[in-house]
Amino acid sequence: MDDDDMDHGHSAAVAWEAGKPLVIEEVEVAPPQKNEVRLKILFTSLCHTDVYFWEAKVTANSYLIHACGLHLIVESVGEGVTDLQPGDHVLPVFTGECKECPHCHSEESNMCDLLRINTDRGVMINDGQSRFSIKGKPIYHFVGTSTFSEYTVTHVGCVAKINPAAPLDKVCVLSCGISTGFGATVNVAKPKKGQTVAIFGLGAVGLAAAEGARVSGASRIIGVDLNPSRFNEAKKFGVTEFVNPKDYDKPVQQVIAEMTNGGVDRSVECTGSVQAMISAFECVHDGWGVAVLVGVPNKDDAFKTHPMNLLNERTLKGTFFGNYKPRSDLPSVVEKYMNKEMELEKFITHAVPFSEINKAFDLMLSGESIRCIIRMDG
Amino acid sequence: MDDDDMDHGHSAAVAWEAGKPLVIEEVEVAPPQKNEVRLKILFTSLCHTDVYFWEAKVTANSYLIHACGLHLIVESVGEGVTDLQPGDHVLPVFTGECKECPHCHSEESNMCDLLRINTDRGVMINDGQSRFSIKGKPIYHFVGTSTFSEYTVTHVGCVAKINPAAPLDKVCVLSCGISTGFGATVNVAKPKKGQTVAIFGLGAVGLAAAEGARVSGASRIIGVDLNPSRFNEAKKFGVTEFVNPKDYDKPVQQVIAEMTNGGVDRSVECTGSVQAMISAFECVHDGWGVAVLVGVPNKDDAFKTHPMNLLNERTLKGTFFGNYKPRSDLPSVVEKYMNKEMELEKFITHAVPFSEINKAFDLMLSGESIRCIIRMDG
Ligand SMILES: NC(=O)c1ccc[n+]([C@@H]2O[C@H](COP(=O)([O-])OP(=O)(O)OC[C@H]3O[C@@H](n4cnc5c(N)ncnc54)[C@H](O)[C@@H]3O)[C@@H](O)[C@H]2O)c1
Ligand SMILES: NC(=O)c1ccc[n+]([C@@H]2O[C@H](COP(=O)([O-])OP(=O)(O)OC[C@H]3O[C@@H](n4cnc5c(N)ncnc54)[C@H](O)[C@@H]3O)[C@@H](O)[C@H]2O)c1
Ligand SMILES: [Zn+2]
Ligand SMILES: [Zn+2]
Ligand SMILES: [Zn+2]
Ligand SMILES: [Zn+2]
Repeated sequence: MDDDDMDHGHSAAVAWEAGKPLVIEEVEVAPPQKNEVRLKILFTSLCHTDVYFWEAKVTANSYLIHACGLHLIVESVGEGVTDLQPGDHVLPVFTGECKECPHCHSEESNMCDLLRINTDRGVMINDGQSRFSIKGKPIYHFVGTSTFSEYTVTHVGCVAKINPAAPLDKVCVLSCGISTGFGATVNVAKPKKGQTVAIFGLGAVGLAAAEGARVSGASRIIGVDLNPSRFNEAKKFGVTEFVNPKDYDKPVQQVIAEMTNGGVDRSVECTGSVQAMISAFECVHDGWGVAVLVGVPNKDDAFKTHPMNLLNERTLKGTFFGNYKPRSDLPSVVEKYMNKEMELEKFITHAVPFSEINKAFDLMLSGESIRCIIRMDG
Repeated sequence: MDDDDMDHGHSAAVAWEAGKPLVIEEVEVAPPQKNEVRLKILFTSLCHTDVYFWEAKVTANSYLIHACGLHLIVESVGEGVTDLQPGDHVLPVFTGECKECPHCHSEESNMCDLLRINTDRGVMINDGQSRFSIKGKPIYHFVGTSTFSEYTVTHVGCVAKINPAAPLDKVCVLSCGISTGFGATVNVAKPKKGQTVAIFGLGAVGLAAAEGARVSGASRIIGVDLNPSRFNEAKKFGVTEFVNPKDYDKPVQQVIAEMTNGGVDRSVECTGSVQAMISAFECVHDGWGVAVLVGVPNKDDAFKTHPMNLLNERTLKGTFFGNYKPRSDLPSVVEKYMNKEMELEKFITHAVPFSEINKAFDLMLSGESIRCIIRMDG
């Protein structure tokens, strides 16, 4: 595709109405502007965030929605882009890294002032416009990636250049939830070899957190979920014991404390339920326990605990994309997979062609899939 | 004093009734049993914990209350005590270190399973009895130290042996609040050189936290207190700016965020007010901010915040005695003072003889004193 191509369209799945099936449309994709790249998409996927916003947020405007877990090849680059060139293999990420703000300069933060996730902005930063249109009418972006499309345009700061030898249909899952969960454990909770870890929520993010605990050498990985059907799958991810809060009359934090002589060493919450966040915090051992929150809460939720639970030397943290800086850190996560230090195949349970994208939504909604890959060529 | 002395008494200040002046009585002090030491007290002091329990908790039983900031010389040792001998200079601490439990073995925790602070137990662990009595009637200990007395008996795990060259009337303040506040900053909040720090509550503990920030090279130390009279004093402790929440219509966390381009790098809460705990947490910068809670909350307080404040990569921790292990770490804090790496003189604003101990309570209650030393020989 070059700029002359702009007169004929390319396929994209558009969310016209909240909760209604996406519709494959012909869209025009404008060329990349300053600090932007246009990407050809080979594989994409979707995560819970897509479903959440598709159910709740699509309003007057129509969105090309997010899509986590994807793999793209740079098609063209805009002015000022020096570290990418056509043909590079990349992973785009819903949050970016400008490399210039205090967050990008901090060793600890990945919450870039310029490019951190923004679920309200459906346009590009450079000119406040969308790069997608149908017959001149704009179709809005979602969280900076918008990959349910043959071509997309993103800010260069939201794109990680990766090893071209990495298999496209596998490492694509590192774009969102899998890195989020894995990083929450290895970068934030940081369990030491032999420690005990509780994982709340055994969806894709929680299973990736469990994979992080397995790789870290945890002695016990306790999986907590309200849905017992998650338990069998979770064994593949190193989960050694299961707790369903519904099976007990007492709070799950108490059940876990009794199983572990006072509490686990680390916990990672991957549910989005504020009750699970509180339990995940209160189930860590006093003196040294660390709890990490990953799930996205509702707007009116309140995290509530007795301050004595904190004074007793517990640590509570939250994380965003597993504290990875997309451009600086993601290439080495891909290398971890290439070196067989982490497994990705087990996360990919389904695959559908682009024409059946709505099936991927159904599989996510029914809880059948961990990750369903969408093949753009299919 | 040897065991034959037990037939005549020694002076001690006894709290017979909640909130009523202490009464100096002749008490008998039994010899130390297994893993206990009997100490001769030279200097003592009191902290807010004393006042709190004296106001609220003295009931049917009478207590020889806590007393932080004290200095003692070992008088005799019980069976099994090998690392202390008569004549050693020591600091006793309200929390202990058995050196054998999982907490004592952990690098991170100082919450010893055997000897952590216990405000309900007024007796020795070895035989469940008090070592103090008046005419055969037991007088109870308080938090393992009970130093408002010419002699006291403590578990060897609650006693730190220190450099005998250290001036007794200065390093005595390291027994409780000063180490608590200083350690909260240097061991837990760990500000980096040039970072900004907010301190909530400018009592002795908060001023010690400020001293920790000063020693760490903080670029700005923002003191927050409801009592404007604390502000002048605080300058000596490196506090560079003052915020009185009462002076603003908006929450103090917002005031601080506006002063600091999004929030301070570190905050240390030293008030005991749950509202201040919440503000101290919410005023730290997203991405890397760390808030440390030190104040002792009320039983029915709830720490409440929107979980998004955590997801935005803030860290919340609590600490107890500044995360110092009393026996392992306190001797080196004394050395810090000896090497002029920290200042102690400025904490000691008053001194009274033992006979005027109730004056020390008045000075604490009126907020006039930071630390008032009580001289046992006076
Ligand atoms: N912080 C980040 O950067 C980031 C990135 C991606 C996803 N997320 C969030 O992570 C969370 C998990 O994502 P996912 O894709 O794995 O979702 P998912 O729906 O596949 O999995 C969530 C699991 O949690 C379980 N659960 C729900 N409430 C529970 C409770 N009270 N106790 C125990 N288990 C409970 C569910 O049964 C489900 O199995 C979501 O909230 C998502 O929005 C956060
Ligand atoms: N965690 C521990 O190991 C440990 C050890 C010793 C003391 N403490 C606790 O530390 C706290 C401080 O002790 P201290 O001896 O310095 O007490 P203090 O009473 O001398 O000082 C507390 C200060 O906090 C201020 N304050 C109260 N509410 C406030 C609010 N909402 N906002 C701002 N300032 C407020 C007061 O005006 C006062 O100046 C107490 O709660 C004490 O019990 C904890
Ligand atoms: Zn996603
Ligand atoms: Zn940035
Ligand atoms: Zn004290
Ligand atoms: Zn111990």
